[in-house]
Order: sequence, then C-alpha cells, then structure tokens
Amino acid sequence: MPVNLTAPASGSLKPIKGIQLGIAEAGVRKANRKDLLVMTLPEGAQVAGVFTQNRFCAAPVILCREFLAAGEPIRALVVNTGNANAGTGVDGLARARQVCAALGEHLHCASEQVLPFSTGVIMESLPVERIVDSLPAALVDLSEAHWEKAAEAIMTTDIVAKGLSRQCEIDGKTVTVTGIAKGSGMIHPNMATMLGYVATDAAVPAGLLQGMLKEISNVSFNRVTVDGDTSTNDSFILIAAGTSGVVVESAQAAGYAALYAAVREVAVFLAQALARDGEGATKFVTIEVSGGRDAEECLKVGKAIAHSPLIKTALFASDPNLGRLLAAIGYAGIADLDVNTVRLWLGSVLVAENGGRNPAYVEAEAAAIMKEAEIIIRVDLGRGNASETVWTCDFSYDYVKINAEYRS
Amino acid sequence: MPVNLTAPASGSLKPIKGIQLGIAEAGVRKANRKDLLVMTLPEGAQVAGVFTQNRFCAAPVILCREFLAAGEPIRALVVNTGNANAGTGVDGLARARQVCAALGEHLHCASEQVLPFSTGVIMESLPVERIVDSLPAALVDLSEAHWEKAAEAIMTTDIVAKGLSRQCEIDGKTVTVTGIAKGSGMIHPNMATMLGYVATDAAVPAGLLQGMLKEISNVSFNRVTVDGDTSTNDSFILIAAGTSGVVVESAQAAGYAALYAAVREVAVFLAQALARDGEGATKFVTIEVSGGRDAEECLKVGKAIAHSPLIKTALFASDPNLGRLLAAIGYAGIADLDVNTVRLWLGSVLVAENGGRNPAYVEAEAAAIMKEAEIIIRVDLGRGNASETVWTCDFSYDYVKINAEYRS
Repeated sequence: MPVNLTAPASGSLKPIKGIQLGIAEAGVRKANRKDLLVMTLPEGAQVAGVFTQNRFCAAPVILCREFLAAGEPIRALVVNTGNANAGTGVDGLARARQVCAALGEHLHCASEQVLPFSTGVIMESLPVERIVDSLPAALVDLSEAHWEKAAEAIMTTDIVAKGLSRQCEIDGKTVTVTGIAKGSGMIHPNMATMLGYVATDAAVPAGLLQGMLKEISNVSFNRVTVDGDTSTNDSFILIAAGTSGVVVESAQAAGYAALYAAVREVAVFLAQALARDGEGATKFVTIEVSGGRDAEECLKVGKAIAHSPLIKTALFASDPNLGRLLAAIGYAGIADLDVNTVRLWLGSVLVAENGGRNPAYVEAEAAAIMKEAEIIIRVDLGRGNASETVWTCDFSYDYVKINAEYRS
Repeated sequence: MPVNLTAPASGSLKPIKGIQLGIAEAGVRKANRKDLLVMTLPEGAQVAGVFTQNRFCAAPVILCREFLAAGEPIRALVVNTGNANAGTGVDGLARARQVCAALGEHLHCASEQVLPFSTGVIMESLPVERIVDSLPAALVDLSEAHWEKAAEAIMTTDIVAKGLSRQCEIDGKTVTVTGIAKGSGMIHPNMATMLGYVATDAAVPAGLLQGMLKEISNVSFNRVTVDGDTSTNDSFILIAAGTSGVVVESAQAAGYAALYAAVREVAVFLAQALARDGEGATKFVTIEVSGGRDAEECLKVGKAIAHSPLIKTALFASDPNLGRLLAAIGYAGIADLDVNTVRLWLGSVLVAENGGRNPAYVEAEAAAIMKEAEIIIRVDLGRGNASETVWTCDFSYDYVKINAEYRS
C-alpha cells in the first residue's frame, strides 16, 4: 500500500485557466478502463519537456523531442496507458504520428502541435484505431476541472492517483501551479519520470521555462528510484499557460523565486509520490548523503543504497541489518574513499564511524526506527561539502508478485 | 532450489597432495554448525589471491593483501562463517590477527604465514575466543580427503556445497585441480567471489600464478551476479602446491595451456554454481553480448540485464515480457547506441531487430523457452567485434524471504 500517500481530494487540484482535460475509455489493453487523456492548451502557452535518456526511447518520446525542437506552438497533449509504444521501430513512429494527426484534425492544428505520450507494455503495437476512435469522447469530456480525473486516467500499476496544487502571489496576483504524475515500477528517471505534467497560469518565456524544468527535474524526478530500471517513456512536461495575467520574464524577475519554489514543491511531491506508491512499497526511504567532494559521488552512494536489493529487503523486514549499508557505501564507486571518515545514521541513531560500528550503538534503537513507515538514512562521507538526497521504497513480496504478473 | 546443481558426490573432489583440510564447530553465530575450516599447505606451495574492491573491505581481506604482499611462504588458511568481520574498524583487524597468531603457534609459523577469511553478518564483533578454542579440533581433523567437508563448512545461505576437480596430463604426469566456493547472496564479485579456493599439485612460480588467477577470475567469478551487491569479503585464492612433480615455469611452457584450461574450467563451474544456487533462484540465466566496440560496453549491457529486478521477476514468472530487455539495453550506458543495429534473441528465437519486434516473432515460442530452467539471452549490438558473457539467476519470492529473514 502507498506509504503516507492518498489520492488528491476532490477539488484539491486547482484548474489552470485555459487548460482543459478530457478522459475516455479506448480499450488500449483492457476494456472498461479510462486509458486515454487529451489535454488542450490555450493560445500562447509555452511548453518545456525533459525526456528519458534510454536509447530505446519510445516513439512518442522521439516525436515530443522533434515537435518541441521545431518550435511550433503546442496546442494539445494526448496520453494513453496500456501500451508504451517503445521498442516498436519505424512502425511505432508512424502509429504515434497517426494519433497526433487525428487529434490535430479535430483541433484544426498541425500534427506537430500535438505532443503524444504512451505508457504500458513495451514492444507491442499501438492500437491506433481504438485510440483515434475514442478521441471524440475525450474531446466531449474536456473541462478545466478534470485534473483529478486526468491523474486517475494516466495510472498503470499505481495504486493511488498523484497530484498537487500550489499557489503563490506575484505582483499582487494569484498564480496557480498544478501537477499530476504516474509511475510505480520501472522507476529510475534519467532526466524525467514516467509521466509528469506540471502547469501554471503564469506566462514564462520558452527558454526560461526549459531552464526551470531542467533544474527542477534534477532535484525531483531525477532523485527517485523504485527498482533502478530507467523507463523507455519517461517524460516530464512543464506548461506555462500565461492565462493569469502574470508574466515572469527572467530569472531576475521579482516573481521568479516564488514561481520556482511552487513548481519545485509540486515536482518534489510528485517525485516522492512515485516512491511512496512504488510497486509493493511498504516504506518510504529518504537517503541523505553529505560530505562528498562533489554531487556525483554523493549520488553514487545514494543510488547504491537505493538500488541494493539486500538493503531494500531488510527495510521491508524492518531488520536493522545495517552492515549492508556499509557494503553499499563501499562498492558505490568512490575509488579513494577512506572508510574511517564515513559516518552513518539511521534516523537520529549514529550507527557507524571510524570504519566500524559506533561503540555506543544500541540495536534496539535502530530496530525501533526500522519499524517506521518513513525512514531516513544519512551518510556523511567526511571529505567535502557536496550533498544530495535520493528517495526510494523497500522491496517486498508484492514487488515480485506485481512484476511476475504484470501482463497477465 | 539450486538450478541443475548438486553437491559434489562423495569422492569426486580429488585430493591435492600436501594440502590438508580440517573442520570444526566453533559456534561463531549458531551452535552445532560446522563453521570453521583450517587448510594447511605443504612447504614450497605458492599462493595467489584476488580480493573485493569494496572500500569497506573486511579485516581478513586487508590482512590477506598485507601477508601476500609481504611474500613470506603461506602455510595455512583459516576460514570462519557466521561473521564477516567487515565494518569492524581497528578492533576487527586486531581480532583477525589474533586468529592468525593462534593458528601460527599451533603450526610453528609466523602469524603472517596464515591467511584469514570470514563470511557472514557485517558489522558484528568476531568472537575470537570461540574460534581460537576450536582450532585444536580442526587440526585433529586435518586430512587430504576433506575437500567435500570443507565445501560444506564454508556455506552460509548456500543450499548445496560447491566443488569440482579436473585433471590434465603434463609431461606424462597427472596434474589435479580441485576447487571449492561458497556464495549465494551479496554476489556481484569485483575481482573475486565471496570465497573461492582452487588448488593444484603443479608447481607454478608466484608471478605466473597471480597472472593466471587474475585472468581467470575475470572470466569466471567477475562475470556472475545474483543481486548486484558487491560483498565486503570476496576472496578468490589459487594455490599451487607443487607436490605432483610437475613444474609449469612460464606461460610458454608446454603444460601451461592444459593447466590454465583446467583451472579455468573449475573456476567457471564454481562461479556459475553461485548463480545456480543464488538466493531464491529458480532459473539459471546466461547473457551473451556480442557485437560491442569493446568488452566494457558488452559488460554494461550484460550487467544491466542481469541486475534488472523487472527482468529477473519476469524470468521467475516465465513471462516473456521481453520489452524489459530492450529497456535495459537502452539504459545500460552506451550513449551513442543505435537501437536499429541491435538484435535480441531468447534462446534461438529472434525477438527484436531494427529497433522493434521481429515481425516473425511468435510469443508462444518465447513462452516455451521462458519455462526452461536454463535460459540464454543473446544480444548482438551490431557495432563491433567484442563479446562478453554474464551469468545470473532470477528473482523470486524466496529471495525476498531469505533476505528479510537472514539474521533471524
């Protein structure tokens, strides 16, 4: 069950003026399932995106990159679940283009003004006809109030829908930021997550929006892992609708910091939500690594811990078998690490220092912390001033069950 | 249950003249368990070793490196299970030295002539007294015929003992190679495995022996992974007792190739045995990657596949959800990989080419292969002539169970 995470309450996701969302049942993989989302954008909206670094990136990811680079105004997004349209070669690209063309025809815009997204099983043909046939139903459903329905429609193995809104004041006006995301397995984003969409009604120029997105994805989605598997379809999209009347022209503008903070808060919430609802998760784990020479070595240690099946199963069992943490720190890839400067805490308990266990360590204290649903592991490498934080979840019987039975 | 692996039959492990093995119950962690092995070597024996690259390497690993570098003739090895003596700082080093000193006193040699090895729980104090008190019992038990007992004594979560003998003819004389190993979890050797010992009665000079060991560890133990966790205690030891009357002086000597082949066969068998008896394993998986520009990129792809929890759970479920293989190839870290040149086979079935699924692919054929206990995954990167092979196992409910309950 998701760790301290519930679906957004009805009405909690604030509309972004000018952005409408419509849902339909296209039967992509299974019948009677809301598996199609269309999102339309107002004229003048700016869209920035970051995408998976997986070389087997999905056809829709290739098209998103192409269409965003072309610079034509984006008028709509279309998302299907049930099929990733990845590992599908030139045929997959053609099918994704057909979906964009069909939606473009309805909206009287070019297919290059429609960004496609898919998530689901890899290396299966996208059922274009069923998606195209369901577009009218999604368009009839369009409404600014459908963010919660949209968060539900993009779920796959997710147990709860993920969304958050934040508001800030800029120039005496209220600016809204609303975001939704999905993802539960194959989560180790590299530039982005499975699918994440954050929108604001502020106006932000394209270059500034893209810079903000890159920075924020690096401290949100790029810091979460469930299983270490980087998806073929990761996409994180930031939309500035510009409908609030507030314009944030540059990083030096008065409102930039407030907008940045609101977008970051939404993105971090959504990224953490992926791990809280990670496949089979029973614990939410924060790994804080400090005292590194640079961010890269902090990340190496954080990810070695976050990816270790031995540590993740011990977390599931609430077993303070913490030597496994030392082992992961030791093999993380810092060739000249002096283990005598390393300190390790579980919550507030100092577990290890001087190359071994803290003499004052009492296992009962660590055992009590391991039973919590939220666990903080802190590592001080003692060799510099860089620090990084990584979020993950534990590894349970249900992870195996979910992934052994995913397609059935 | 171990995949196509049984313990060595009684009498199948051939003695190496001059090498004696004795077992005892020291009660290191649990009572009534054979957890102590002493191995004595004849005068003139040469010993080579490779050890874990984990920075939190165990105290005995530090001492082995120190003693082998010092160059004094090694007269004995002492191995305990139940406690890894890793993450134990200066106190751990002192305790390991005490064990070596005590055995050295019995054998009338310096403590630096005794190599210590430990395996078990990390970050716990080694119970030196219980080990030292049990040395006499192990010495009384010494016999050249005890290789099978020794293979059993070094087991931890292993289900079956692992050992193999091979013989070859050199200069008309029979040369014997016998090896044993243990390891089932925290298996991703980097220079060596958990514990592996291979001995021959041929005489081999120290430098040549070390070179042979390094080369062979790189195509045996360094190519196997169970969970991607590199242990703190990996040690792989090659002993040339020199008691057969056969001397292999150089890599150009007539007998070198035959001896190399026999040692390699034993090492590869033992390395594969670790994966066949990997924690919770139900499948043994061989990943052959060819067509790489260099060995490193082949290994990146092989290990990405071997470490992916999504692939390992699909293997457990016999589910040909093979898009997960494309995803792992795509995120393995080859930045300029052209997915259109990649070909993927499951056994003899061509699954993918030209960036997507082979049009002639029939899922029923792949499903039949996925049900086998031995599975071969082949990837041709189509960009060079390098190739590498990696062995692993699947990821089952029992992996979680074993590691959630390991210390209890």
